[in-house]
Amino acid sequence: MVSEVIEDMLKRMQSHPGVIGSVIINKEGQVIKSTLDNTTSLQYASLATRVCDSSVDALRNIDPTNDLTFLRVRSKKT
Amino acid sequence: MVSEVIEDMLKRMQSHPGVIGSVIINKEGQVIKSTLDNTTSLQYASLATRVCDSSVDALRNIDPTNDLTFLRVRSKKT
Repeated sequence: MVSEVIEDMLKRMQSHPGVIGSVIINKEGQVIKSTLDNTTSLQYASLATRVCDSSVDALRNIDPTNDLTFLRVRSKKT
Repeated sequence: MVSEVIEDMLKRMQSHPGVIGSVIINKEGQVIKSTLDNTTSLQYASLATRVCDSSVDALRNIDPTNDLTFLRVRSKKT
């Protein structure tokens, strides 16, 4: 279940030009909620999990007690 | 050789509270310029390269012609 606060945040994100959808995943990479089709949601979830995991590994390599709180990946086409 | 524009940018970044240093690396993960000691610079360069590479892989998995332009990793302690 996704809280009302999260729902509002998603609606606002969704209204930004260029936003094609949103996918909420948990730490294990499971899709909690998505506005995209199932195949795309699973693809994005798996890719995002890999990037998050490598970021967490990097942070913990420096300080084992640290953790990831925010990750932004910007690309040529977005 | 790092341009004057980059030098200015680094100085401004360096003046932000909490910034401990800056490391400039190329796409191959080689350190171009750093304000940190050699061991720390090489450690950060290798970790940053791994996170960048997994981000590029994720982007190209979706669109092989895309590329990474910006990556921000924020953690519990920074």
